[in-house]
Amino acid sequence: MKRTLIKNLIENEESKISGFAKKIRNTKYMYFIILEDRSSSIQVSIEKETNKEMCEQLEGVLSDSVIEFVGKMVKSEYVKNGGKEFIPTSLNILSKADASPLEDNANIDTRMDYRWIDLRTKRNNLMLKVQSLLVQGMRDYLYENDFTEIHTPKLIGAASESGSEVFEVNYFNRKAYLAQSPQFYKQMAIASSLERVFEVAPVFRAENSNTYRHATEYTGFDVEIAYIDDLEELMNIEEDLIINGLIKVKEKYNDQIKELFNTEVIIPNKPFPRIDLNDLYNKLHDKYGYDIPKEDVGDMNNETESLITKFAMEEYGSEFIFVTGFSKSKRPFYHKRENDKPIGYDLIYRGTEITTGSLREHRYDILKKQSEEKGLTKDVEFYLNFFKYGCPPHGGFGIGIDRLNMLLLNLPSLKEEMFIFRGPNRLEP
Amino acid sequence: MKRTLIKNLIENEESKISGFAKKIRNTKYMYFIILEDRSSSIQVSIEKETNKEMCEQLEGVLSDSVIEFVGKMVKSEYVKNGGKEFIPTSLNILSKADASPLEDNANIDTRMDYRWIDLRTKRNNLMLKVQSLLVQGMRDYLYENDFTEIHTPKLIGAASESGSEVFEVNYFNRKAYLAQSPQFYKQMAIASSLERVFEVAPVFRAENSNTYRHATEYTGFDVEIAYIDDLEELMNIEEDLIINGLIKVKEKYNDQIKELFNTEVIIPNKPFPRIDLNDLYNKLHDKYGYDIPKEDVGDMNNETESLITKFAMEEYGSEFIFVTGFSKSKRPFYHKRENDKPIGYDLIYRGTEITTGSLREHRYDILKKQSEEKGLTKDVEFYLNFFKYGCPPHGGFGIGIDRLNMLLLNLPSLKEEMFIFRGPNRLEP
Repeated sequence: MKRTLIKNLIENEESKISGFAKKIRNTKYMYFIILEDRSSSIQVSIEKETNKEMCEQLEGVLSDSVIEFVGKMVKSEYVKNGGKEFIPTSLNILSKADASPLEDNANIDTRMDYRWIDLRTKRNNLMLKVQSLLVQGMRDYLYENDFTEIHTPKLIGAASESGSEVFEVNYFNRKAYLAQSPQFYKQMAIASSLERVFEVAPVFRAENSNTYRHATEYTGFDVEIAYIDDLEELMNIEEDLIINGLIKVKEKYNDQIKELFNTEVIIPNKPFPRIDLNDLYNKLHDKYGYDIPKEDVGDMNNETESLITKFAMEEYGSEFIFVTGFSKSKRPFYHKRENDKPIGYDLIYRGTEITTGSLREHRYDILKKQSEEKGLTKDVEFYLNFFKYGCPPHGGFGIGIDRLNMLLLNLPSLKEEMFIFRGPNRLEP
Repeated sequence: MKRTLIKNLIENEESKISGFAKKIRNTKYMYFIILEDRSSSIQVSIEKETNKEMCEQLEGVLSDSVIEFVGKMVKSEYVKNGGKEFIPTSLNILSKADASPLEDNANIDTRMDYRWIDLRTKRNNLMLKVQSLLVQGMRDYLYENDFTEIHTPKLIGAASESGSEVFEVNYFNRKAYLAQSPQFYKQMAIASSLERVFEVAPVFRAENSNTYRHATEYTGFDVEIAYIDDLEELMNIEEDLIINGLIKVKEKYNDQIKELFNTEVIIPNKPFPRIDLNDLYNKLHDKYGYDIPKEDVGDMNNETESLITKFAMEEYGSEFIFVTGFSKSKRPFYHKRENDKPIGYDLIYRGTEITTGSLREHRYDILKKQSEEKGLTKDVEFYLNFFKYGCPPHGGFGIGIDRLNMLLLNLPSLKEEMFIFRGPNRLEP
């Protein structure tokens, strides 16, 4: 007999169901089991008197065991869970669970030790499904707009790009490094005349940061587009992309998100507000009396990101806001500049930066000069060559998928949000 | 003015186009430039006498430079390329190319040195677009069938799984390893009650193999499904998945594939033929006089994979064939067994194995025993724990996307097919 999903059960029709036994209640005359599959859950009711064999099978079986039942769903006014119950004629213990080592109120580090049990809740299952659908919606937007998905190498020969530390790999008789981002290679795709590319893939950061929003490995959603004329065009694409993802999630999961995460998916209006960094500093001073510390001038810090979110909500009623006008000393060498300022932005959502985007410098000589200014020479030589033999002007951005989903679901940290978190002190499970 | 794609040009309408100058012909009275963008190409014709300024701009400009033209498309019976040409009133050199270092008949290793130029051909652009669409079609099938996309960690704490060598990473004050496959973690997702998951992500193999079908990093398409009753169900899903991808590719690109790769997309019939390994040995002996060497009994080798393809075509008219009945000594410990034989398969396509699939052993005690038989103990302990607290029976498979696309397009090696190839001697660009 084929398995039927619980939500598809038809009254009085003989069916086979299977799932996790979330609760097993052993009363004087009855066994009551709440069985849960990916579609729904149902109470399985077994009368002891007439079902000796099944009762023997259930002896010593603990919750979270996986059980298959054959029987019939019937309507019953006594059952709270939807007025339905399942009356089995036989059962099969597919997997017998040991007592769970995970207490209900365990802290996040213990929960990560037993992540496979921790993720088993409706809430955490939903969290992963929302992430999947969000990415699906974003990818669909790109497919519809003529983008090609690429897969760039994560093993690279030179420790590249920026100040952030890279992981070193023993690669046969030499050293390799793990890519901190697909930046150089998505730009190579532009030089390969692909015009519009994206990649969803792991990125690796050897930073010893233990904050709510840092991980040593996470999923980057990276986009690069040729023949972009100005930053507006790029921001416009990123807006559409994110809105497309959010709409998908809202349509399918908004009610469940309300119930299980106590928050709502809000579809932002276009265009998202934009503000120049200097204007922002003035606004934060005037409105909140906040002055940015000297060392952070030309950039944002965590406090600015919080305040700008407050500001964007008060001033524009928006959860998203683009910030432009960063100082070149705070941005990577490959950002294109105008009047010595990088033509780029950060996108802030609910208090945290989720994207950096920019036009890229595609002219070999200028790019070389900018890299030398940052003290980069040998390590970026291979990359500079991409621009020697013809390369269209272009721009792009990268979104941290885990951050976006963390903020969307109002979660306190990436440890909560990621399928499996990786940090300086966390390589398990 | 906004850019117009060449294929969207309207006769006599002032437009801006931009792209790579594939050919620049400087004749006595005229400049002729073949301009190519992602949609099409067109001849740009400039009369020297009346366009002094443009001619000055074009002095010393070599092919593969990127140029933007403003002007009008007109019909012309003298032009071969579709009877259309573009008459510009101004131009802008967006990127001036140095002379290409890549000769037309360069070997594959030189081509990889300048991969961004090498990929610039119509043929190689198409190759990447086919890969993208193939994966899109396969993903869409899974989305429609209630699968959740997951992102599993590539940095892992234990050198796991199988005999193949793993890359070692310096991870703060300890060692980490690069995941050879998401196998353990997609099974963890099953223990987390997700039921149906997939991942498209890089996998890393530290094998010193220099063959047409090996790479040290490539893209795996991994699927795992709970409550699978038998291998047929699993094979059936893999068939649907592949067919869905192939149909998408055939619809959009079959004509171009014929033209540029001299091959065709053939949509296979369901079910793909299946054969047991022992029956196969007999068939290969009877039909081709081939006997498998002693050391390969219970498995396939390259010769068997070639011959079985011939056999599948002759006997079933199929390019795909499933082989079952491998010996447990040739398969990983986590394959479920029946009568001491792994319940699993390989899928062969056009002479090469593209998938291994199997039911998985989900019962802790048996799994532990099977791992010990293979001499695995400490390294798999974390993995064995996934099965201690309840886990549904399940099965899954992994497809090498690059291999599949290589075979689909009749390419001689992964070096040709991959965006950027990685092998024991190849970490650049």
